[in-house]
Amino acid sequence: MSRDALFRQAAVELGFAPDGEIVKGGNYLPLLREGHTIYLSGQVPRIGTEVVVSGRAGAEVALAQARRGAQICVLRALALLQRELGSLEQLRQLLRLTVYVQCTPDFTQHSEVADGASELLQAILGAAGTHTRTAVGVQQLPKNATVELDLIAAVH
Amino acid sequence: MSRDALFRQAAVELGFAPDGEIVKGGNYLPLLREGHTIYLSGQVPRIGTEVVVSGRAGAEVALAQARRGAQICVLRALALLQRELGSLEQLRQLLRLTVYVQCTPDFTQHSEVADGASELLQAILGAAGTHTRTAVGVQQLPKNATVELDLIAAVH
Amino acid sequence: MSRDALFRQAAVELGFAPDGEIVKGGNYLPLLREGHTIYLSGQVPRIGTEVVVSGRAGAEVALAQARRGAQICVLRALALLQRELGSLEQLRQLLRLTVYVQCTPDFTQHSEVADGASELLQAILGAAGTHTRTAVGVQQLPKNATVELDLIAAVH
Repeated sequence: MSRDALFRQAAVELGFAPDGEIVKGGNYLPLLREGHTIYLSGQVPRIGTEVVVSGRAGAEVALAQARRGAQICVLRALALLQRELGSLEQLRQLLRLTVYVQCTPDFTQHSEVADGASELLQAILGAAGTHTRTAVGVQQLPKNATVELDLIAAVH
Repeated sequence: MSRDALFRQAAVELGFAPDGEIVKGGNYLPLLREGHTIYLSGQVPRIGTEVVVSGRAGAEVALAQARRGAQICVLRALALLQRELGSLEQLRQLLRLTVYVQCTPDFTQHSEVADGASELLQAILGAAGTHTRTAVGVQQLPKNATVELDLIAAVH
Repeated sequence: MSRDALFRQAAVELGFAPDGEIVKGGNYLPLLREGHTIYLSGQVPRIGTEVVVSGRAGAEVALAQARRGAQICVLRALALLQRELGSLEQLRQLLRLTVYVQCTPDFTQHSEVADGASELLQAILGAAGTHTRTAVGVQQLPKNATVELDLIAAVH
């Protein structure tokens, strides 16, 4: 299957409308291309107008839900990239993924949350979806989101 | 007006001395140029030797003050870029802005704080000042600053 | 002394086995090269399988220990770079260092912790080890690590 078909399939499975409107807040660009590099703004797990995974990992949000949040962030990221590039086949290589997890002071499974994003990126993009990564636990995130992630990628 | 004149005007309005000394702490560079890319170190809202906006957003620091903090970080960033490049006209395009907001566990207006930075960057730099952005809420920041931001930019 | 010899010496002094296995968690790459740029994933102060500096700066972890944590993160980073490049002499210039410090709400010496990393990078790499830097204080880090850092570097 093409990356675009795999993306569509994953979006449907996770309840994310692949052609839906991508609401954004704030006074900035969702992504920006500079030569062969694309910078993508921080994505929260929003479907339509609603942040669907919110609250603290380690308290009201279980690990499985936090991982789903990370996956929905990835779907938003890929939807934005697909619209910019025409097709996800234009992505040459992800370079950097940074994952912020809203958590309690004693939650330490940030890598496990971020794996939700990393695994989905590789399932859809194959080898081009491998990446370097940093995952940290933060105090809060915009709209009380449980996860936020941004990325840098290389394009053809 | 030129970007340099707009910068000077904004600095005066916000109480930031555009030609003042830029104190930095730590054992690193304020900025570094690699080809056509400039990396700028994390900036806190310091005027002279004093961090002028400190404490937690959501508690002792109101939204308007946190936004002013973000704006002073931007002025420091632009002052450093202007001194490095000779003129802000040499900036071709901002690429990435990351905004860290020191906040309480239930403060969720990080985007609104970061908009203070984004709007000022665009007011001074025009289209070159648009950017991708990530805003997160953190536990603490150096010198108890309310906001810290760093950026990556492309130059001519 | 060569950078590789300086690295080996610092590793021995800090109790880090320079040729030891570098355990990593999660489903991602420790580093990735794109043209002349290398992205390195977030490193925690792990020696072998154990995170040797864990807990919160400002509470159970004193400043000196947190600085040692930052130094061990640097040794891991340099060990990964050395294995990828054959020799640390292949590093042309560090560009960006981001340092995350797990801390209490009133700990504000993030720059002092990050200086532990910055000073060691410059002691081993010389002028190529200078860099731009952002240091922030976060709620938690993977495996309860006290420090995590990532970096971007240019290579020959």
